[in-house]
Amino acid sequence: MGLVQPREVLIDEVRQGFGGIHSGRIGAPRMAGILYVVATPIGNLEDVTLRALRTLREVSLIAAEDTRRTARLLQHYSISTRTTSLHEHNERTKAPQLIDRLRAGDSIALVSDAGTPVISDPGQTLVAAARAAGIRVESIPGPSAVMAALASSGLEAREFVFLGFPPTRSKDRKLWLENLAAQTRLAIFFEAPHRIRRTLTDLGTQLGVDRELAVGRELTKVHEELVVCTIEQHLKHFSEPRGEFTLLVPPAAALPRADAGRPSDDQLRVMLGELTNNDVSTRRQALKVLADRYGIAVNELYRLLDGSHDAGHKP
Amino acid sequence: MGLVQPREVLIDEVRQGFGGIHSGRIGAPRMAGILYVVATPIGNLEDVTLRALRTLREVSLIAAEDTRRTARLLQHYSISTRTTSLHEHNERTKAPQLIDRLRAGDSIALVSDAGTPVISDPGQTLVAAARAAGIRVESIPGPSAVMAALASSGLEAREFVFLGFPPTRSKDRKLWLENLAAQTRLAIFFEAPHRIRRTLTDLGTQLGVDRELAVGRELTKVHEELVVCTIEQHLKHFSEPRGEFTLLVPPAAALPRADAGRPSDDQLRVMLGELTNNDVSTRRQALKVLADRYGIAVNELYRLLDGSHDAGHKP
Repeated sequence: MGLVQPREVLIDEVRQGFGGIHSGRIGAPRMAGILYVVATPIGNLEDVTLRALRTLREVSLIAAEDTRRTARLLQHYSISTRTTSLHEHNERTKAPQLIDRLRAGDSIALVSDAGTPVISDPGQTLVAAARAAGIRVESIPGPSAVMAALASSGLEAREFVFLGFPPTRSKDRKLWLENLAAQTRLAIFFEAPHRIRRTLTDLGTQLGVDRELAVGRELTKVHEELVVCTIEQHLKHFSEPRGEFTLLVPPAAALPRADAGRPSDDQLRVMLGELTNNDVSTRRQALKVLADRYGIAVNELYRLLDGSHDAGHKP
Repeated sequence: MGLVQPREVLIDEVRQGFGGIHSGRIGAPRMAGILYVVATPIGNLEDVTLRALRTLREVSLIAAEDTRRTARLLQHYSISTRTTSLHEHNERTKAPQLIDRLRAGDSIALVSDAGTPVISDPGQTLVAAARAAGIRVESIPGPSAVMAALASSGLEAREFVFLGFPPTRSKDRKLWLENLAAQTRLAIFFEAPHRIRRTLTDLGTQLGVDRELAVGRELTKVHEELVVCTIEQHLKHFSEPRGEFTLLVPPAAALPRADAGRPSDDQLRVMLGELTNNDVSTRRQALKVLADRYGIAVNELYRLLDGSHDAGHKP
């Protein structure tokens, strides 16, 4: 990549891209084609990269989760590449045909309805099959609702867990909620508009209605919002919910920063409970984490927090 | 967003965008400005969205992790917006000044060196401060190395955990590796070129050198690669590592699909161990997960797997 490029050249490239002057296929000199996994807008059609547009224009075929939905994007950018449907119900039967075309030298772009394919979207079967067949696979990165919500939430994002959609069967759902409540990392998941109130209600039952969390709605669209407040307030706010939802649930008691001074004994007790529940397999290890982090002697922590439990573990 | 738009209009828009004809500020009619959290390329300068370019052009100021690095992007796209540095060492002192400017009506774009700000990058302090001050914050989504690696890996991606960078202090590192080994979800993390061999070696010790994982290097760049093989093979392959690394570690024993038939007794035992270690808090719950998932009577599973442990829990 040249770092300094005359503006004229760049505009010409872009104009070519939009005008469809390019006729060469990406990867044409190779024997086999390339499978491009292309991220597309999650709501705002302007959220598409220059390379995504070029790739969608230049490949032989676009495998789309919903061809009608992808048609809107293509029409908006005057891209006339043929599309074929690839969704969860036909992925297993369709993937081999697409692999044959890739083998024959055609390059294919994989897109989902919105955002980055494969993550909570179809495509994994095709990508895995392509890799197994020795086909080159490349990501054309772009929008993802997970990252969009996280970046603008203001929440601590050094680590997080992404959980897809909550299960709908009540047994699975119960376990899922228990697991969510036990997370020591920020948890991110999606929810559909017709289920968001039920999910907020269940979260209230599991976590307490005064627990704070972030809910993003219609991110990148005209009426986007990302609200950080208690579950009770969310239930009032989203009384007639529409659009796609992204929820961010901070852990109950994230460890305070090491440079913030020694936590209180009560805080230490809560943190020990968190650590042993999830992150670290034994109380012994958890005590060491806290001792290291806050510069407290391990023996003192053992006496303070562990008197009644693991007496045998005392040093 | 209009769905059908004449091509000429679109090209005019793009030309304006690149030509800098727009002079109006985004959000100008509002009293306060807007803080835009803007994702930028992770390696290929073409991986930038139309809206990111427009936003970077139209805001009053760009707060950049490294102004020299951001200057390359801006120069490439002939964007002349002023930049100011905002990195982990000055974020706390600088954020209040930027909040004052936002309050005064200026819109500001926050960018990191590469990818989506805040996630493993500075910016959280500013975003949180802006939200606390009632300033509107919007994501302009785009590239993220996490999503780029995940989408093209072919690995199961319905759920995952993102772990940032491995700690470097050996005590923290030991716990971190133990925690990684205990994950029941795909784990994703970053590593620097000068530490990747040490980390692969430590992973080999913790997980076994024949464990398969994916390593992405220089994603979206000319020499990008994403290799899925054993740790031993990675160590041979990356003998003189360069570039930025993204690692994807599948869980030791992901639950086989429910429609793949009944797992063997040994497989069930391993799965029970996984579940009780991590995902689910009690053996009772874990047994129910397996019973539900594979259509096995709970009583049979209790007899089979739980005879010697939680006898008191038997129904």
